Amino acid sequence: MTSPTDPLVLFMPSGKRGRFPVGTPILDAARQLGVYVESVCGGRATCGRCQIEVQEGNFAKHKIVSSLDHISPKGPKEERYERVRGLPEGRRLSCSATVQGDLVVDVPQDTVINAQTIRKAASDRVIERNPAIQMCYVEVDEPDMHKPLGDLDRLKAVLAKDWGWKDLRVAQHIIPDVQKILRKENWAVTAAIHKDMEFSRPTMVALYPGLKNEAYGVACDIGSTTIAMHLVSLLSGRIVASAGAPNPQIRFGEDVMSRVSYVMMNPDGREAMTAAVRQAVNDLIGKVCAEGGVDRRDIFDSVFVCNPIMHHLFLGIDPTELGQAPFALAVSGAVQGWTHDIGIDVNRGARFYLLPCIAGHVGADAAGATLSEGPYRQDKMMLLVDVGTNAEIVLGNAKHVVAASSPTGPAFEGAEISSGQRAAPGAIERVRIDPETFEPKYRVIGVDKWSDEEGFEDAAQATGVTGICGSAIIEVVAEMYLTGLISEDGVVDGALSARTPRIIENGRTFSYLLRDGQPRITVTQNDIRAIQLAKAALYAGTKLLMEKQGIETVDTIRFAGAFGSFIDPKYAMVLGLIPDCELSEVKAVGNAAGTGALMALLNRDHRREIEREVARIEKVETALEPDFQRLFINAMALPNKVDAFPKLSEQVMLPPRKAAEGGEGEGGGRRRGREGRRRG
Amino acid sequence: MTSPTDPLVLFMPSGKRGRFPVGTPILDAARQLGVYVESVCGGRATCGRCQIEVQEGNFAKHKIVSSLDHISPKGPKEERYERVRGLPEGRRLSCSATVQGDLVVDVPQDTVINAQTIRKAASDRVIERNPAIQMCYVEVDEPDMHKPLGDLDRLKAVLAKDWGWKDLRVAQHIIPDVQKILRKENWAVTAAIHKDMEFSRPTMVALYPGLKNEAYGVACDIGSTTIAMHLVSLLSGRIVASAGAPNPQIRFGEDVMSRVSYVMMNPDGREAMTAAVRQAVNDLIGKVCAEGGVDRRDIFDSVFVCNPIMHHLFLGIDPTELGQAPFALAVSGAVQGWTHDIGIDVNRGARFYLLPCIAGHVGADAAGATLSEGPYRQDKMMLLVDVGTNAEIVLGNAKHVVAASSPTGPAFEGAEISSGQRAAPGAIERVRIDPETFEPKYRVIGVDKWSDEEGFEDAAQATGVTGICGSAIIEVVAEMYLTGLISEDGVVDGALSARTPRIIENGRTFSYLLRDGQPRITVTQNDIRAIQLAKAALYAGTKLLMEKQGIETVDTIRFAGAFGSFIDPKYAMVLGLIPDCELSEVKAVGNAAGTGALMALLNRDHRREIEREVARIEKVETALEPDFQRLFINAMALPNKVDAFPKLSEQVMLPPRKAAEGGEGEGGGRRRGREGRRRG
Repeated sequence: MTSPTDPLVLFMPSGKRGRFPVGTPILDAARQLGVYVESVCGGRATCGRCQIEVQEGNFAKHKIVSSLDHISPKGPKEERYERVRGLPEGRRLSCSATVQGDLVVDVPQDTVINAQTIRKAASDRVIERNPAIQMCYVEVDEPDMHKPLGDLDRLKAVLAKDWGWKDLRVAQHIIPDVQKILRKENWAVTAAIHKDMEFSRPTMVALYPGLKNEAYGVACDIGSTTIAMHLVSLLSGRIVASAGAPNPQIRFGEDVMSRVSYVMMNPDGREAMTAAVRQAVNDLIGKVCAEGGVDRRDIFDSVFVCNPIMHHLFLGIDPTELGQAPFALAVSGAVQGWTHDIGIDVNRGARFYLLPCIAGHVGADAAGATLSEGPYRQDKMMLLVDVGTNAEIVLGNAKHVVAASSPTGPAFEGAEISSGQRAAPGAIERVRIDPETFEPKYRVIGVDKWSDEEGFEDAAQATGVTGICGSAIIEVVAEMYLTGLISEDGVVDGALSARTPRIIENGRTFSYLLRDGQPRITVTQNDIRAIQLAKAALYAGTKLLMEKQGIETVDTIRFAGAFGSFIDPKYAMVLGLIPDCELSEVKAVGNAAGTGALMALLNRDHRREIEREVARIEKVETALEPDFQRLFINAMALPNKVDAFPKLSEQVMLPPRKAAEGGEGEGGGRRRGREGRRRG
Repeated sequence: MTSPTDPLVLFMPSGKRGRFPVGTPILDAARQLGVYVESVCGGRATCGRCQIEVQEGNFAKHKIVSSLDHISPKGPKEERYERVRGLPEGRRLSCSATVQGDLVVDVPQDTVINAQTIRKAASDRVIERNPAIQMCYVEVDEPDMHKPLGDLDRLKAVLAKDWGWKDLRVAQHIIPDVQKILRKENWAVTAAIHKDMEFSRPTMVALYPGLKNEAYGVACDIGSTTIAMHLVSLLSGRIVASAGAPNPQIRFGEDVMSRVSYVMMNPDGREAMTAAVRQAVNDLIGKVCAEGGVDRRDIFDSVFVCNPIMHHLFLGIDPTELGQAPFALAVSGAVQGWTHDIGIDVNRGARFYLLPCIAGHVGADAAGATLSEGPYRQDKMMLLVDVGTNAEIVLGNAKHVVAASSPTGPAFEGAEISSGQRAAPGAIERVRIDPETFEPKYRVIGVDKWSDEEGFEDAAQATGVTGICGSAIIEVVAEMYLTGLISEDGVVDGALSARTPRIIENGRTFSYLLRDGQPRITVTQNDIRAIQLAKAALYAGTKLLMEKQGIETVDTIRFAGAFGSFIDPKYAMVLGLIPDCELSEVKAVGNAAGTGALMALLNRDHRREIEREVARIEKVETALEPDFQRLFINAMALPNKVDAFPKLSEQVMLPPRKAAEGGEGEGGGRRRGREGRRRG
């Protein structure tokens, strides 16, 4: 029982506060308030995981004066730890340090969502940790013939007594080794408890002799094109390593639909693709572990996001149903299980968690992005788009969220464009057109200079200038529109061929010559039509959701995925990819799906959160909406944004990418990094 | 809501009763009262599993007049079932038949514990079924693009709606096949729900297109010598087949201790023995399935009992710790898991349940026997003994139960006896000695006549007379004592060699010549000592437990195991194997351990029951009890029972066994059947 005169303790960053009697260990105070502070050794001052810092000062806002005098001095156990393992300046072990007066206690969080993870993020965010894995050190009673409880049963008894684990399940694979492990370090062991098995039933998934003071997890986004992974310490939240790799399923088909076809045509197709993606995930785990100096057997938990077809193939489910109406998912809810059962080679007791799918075309990746950006966590009306072969579109706020996918096709990724190519050295990535002369200038990936700068051609010798990638296609079409080279309905103005040799007759239509060389790079009428179709699909899908919400404008826009990271939001708005919005409220959020996976890995409350929210989301199937066709046709025209951006070409331009820069948060080869996280 | 004027319905054999409004389906009435009536189709009158019978008459004791007029006439669905599948005279489908007036309803139970299972059982018992497996037929909504729930998610929704399964877990191996199964019979499927996973969390373990109206289980007693198995229909309780087979681990060591030694001496010993016993169990499953015409993939549940060392080896646990003090079990509590994980090849979703062990020497088999005989279910003080190399002894009543094991050694099984042999054709099984002439007569397994009957030698030509088996060793020593050939302290009276040539000098001691032939069969002083030691161990263990209970006599005695089935309780009492008790209260209960397994298979409430009771049992370690040595020495002497049984030889003798008769409830070859279920 606490009294109103007991010292007040405020924990940061959670802001949780409470009064505790003098002498309360700070770890206990945190536990009582539901503040997650790690502890493996259970208060023996040996693991060092429960470190905190005391802030000194007068926190008038919180009506609390915190002082280092308000925490107990270091006792012998804490001093021993400091002597043996070292304790950073200002850090204390919260299991040993007790409350002596009012305190503001800082629980250090390894920042997780930071600039390394999300480029251009408005601000770094902190994920408060509450991982599914807890490492629990105990000292087990020795066997007693008078009370012949089994070794495992006595272990369970002490885990109940010391850590409060009642009704603990024990993974079957541990049982044969229990006796040897218990005897190895004189009946001291550390049990890895997984708290997020089905229905949060705690389960012992691994057992180690003595103190085991490490536990890792991986968060993985399995894209159609690229697989991206973070390796994280579950005990500190630190991202130990991140890496990406191409999805080897590409050899079975470039996009997800061609992979579904492959399954339909080949009796062993599903099996081969499942094996390929699992092998790739295993290889990538090897890569992040090597980079982080971590033993893969110390990985106990994993979270995956992916689009529905990757989801099915990864789980070993035939995706054929997803290739045809009614696009029935085998399972839409979150899936969890033993990594062992899906051929992922980490700790034998490791678990996996796959975020729920929203609908047949709106997968666990969209759920991950939704978790990361959290439209439902705020009042602003947020539009969240992730563009691939389909655009996944989520629109909503705390009141209501709607979601749909729209068939943009691959034009935004440079496919089906005459000079289109993937983002790779040699690809044009930025374009500007002079409104008077219609002369273009451009930048090329891997080349430092603009094309009109001195020495460009020399600098471009190494890479060549080989095509246009996705972001430049948006820009060149937008610039052609802004300069009047094309009309509102997207027709290249052939009359201008009189004013510039860059307008070239091409059968019954006209093209724009961007670069005359080897190869010759042009923007054809067909290219413009393909972009128009793609943008119309995206805009119509967005507009449909806006109509569902009964709104005319959105408050804030998030572009997820690699495509979103590299296009210039201004041009996206010029072309009408996205609805009107304050430019400052348009943000690229990188691999938001992967960030969602990371959040679900580090805090299992986020799993319940996204399961709950996905169930609440209103799913809209564009193919069934009579309005979609109307909206789509209306969206074909290029909007009249000229007045809104009179001097667009003069505005500060986005900095060019560095040649060596990898795909967004994917660490993968540049070649595919920019292609988009996935195409399905 | 029911009213006091609603019809009264009494269910038999449970005796549960309640009032229900006119029109209530009888199945619903049963469910509301907690009476287990099977139903697979969920009230569609297609599975036929919910059959009941109405008893007619005035059941004055229950104040109820039951009449066939008080049940609704057959409706169209029930008539269709009768036409298509047939309905036995008097049977009704309780899902269709409704309450129209007072009723006595008989829920047919396939008798389970009957003469076939337990020989000499006082009376057949009925196990009320409540199996862990429930088959649930449902018709699933087709996919709907407007509500894009996954196929599995819609299946779960209808299982919740129709059958009340909330928070249903789904075994991971089902997921890849869900879509094909759902579509095979037009969205009608039967789910196998296992209700006894850890903490009774319901789990879908298998899924079938259409109506799947069968589910089986196996109850198995893994003895050191013999493995015995019942195959049971979980939907009716019918024992479909029973069989036994030798435990192939015998090739690694005759008794359990030699098998522990084998593990200690051979690096791959544990693995080899685990593989051997699992293979034997798989083979035996094949045998019972072939006999019962059952597909092994229709087996969904299994229950095992075994002694601690078999328990460990079966689970893949090194049993070395059990070979030395403090005899620490790796796990003493009940163990459950997927049969797949222990290499038992039945349905992929099948589970196993292993009864708890009581102590390091008192295993899950003793727990099974305790469950079967239920000392804790009654007020009488019951002694339950199961004799092997160790005797497992349980003593108690509803108030308190104590248990111990006592090192009897293998003498009772014919080992370490000069002319001892296993129970097999040619073995002497009954012995009587004339108190005047000291001439013996005996019976031999496989021979119809007593040795003093005309034509015995001719009849014995086929088998020969090869040795003495366990039951006859007891009898011959008891008869020698009753006729004065040996004294109370077990010494053969050499002086009698003057009166009979059958007393033969043998070094410094004397032997009794039972049969002069090839081979020569004698009872030596050493043989008598071995029996004395064994009986002293058994009696001292029993006496120790009686002292723990503070009692001088027991009310009732149960001999479990094969040894107990074949010895004559009178001789057991003469020799002082067991304490004083009314002879009519001494019963052989055959393979009570196996019966316990069967009970736990057919009714999962029995699992909780035995888990609870095993936790309550006071475990006594004889090696630690200072009194044990004293009791042991006192028990060496043969008790003066001559007055109690003055004309023992003239009493009605037990009927001889038939030559072809198998081991008790084990179905195994006679050769080993009689050797005892196990030796550890």
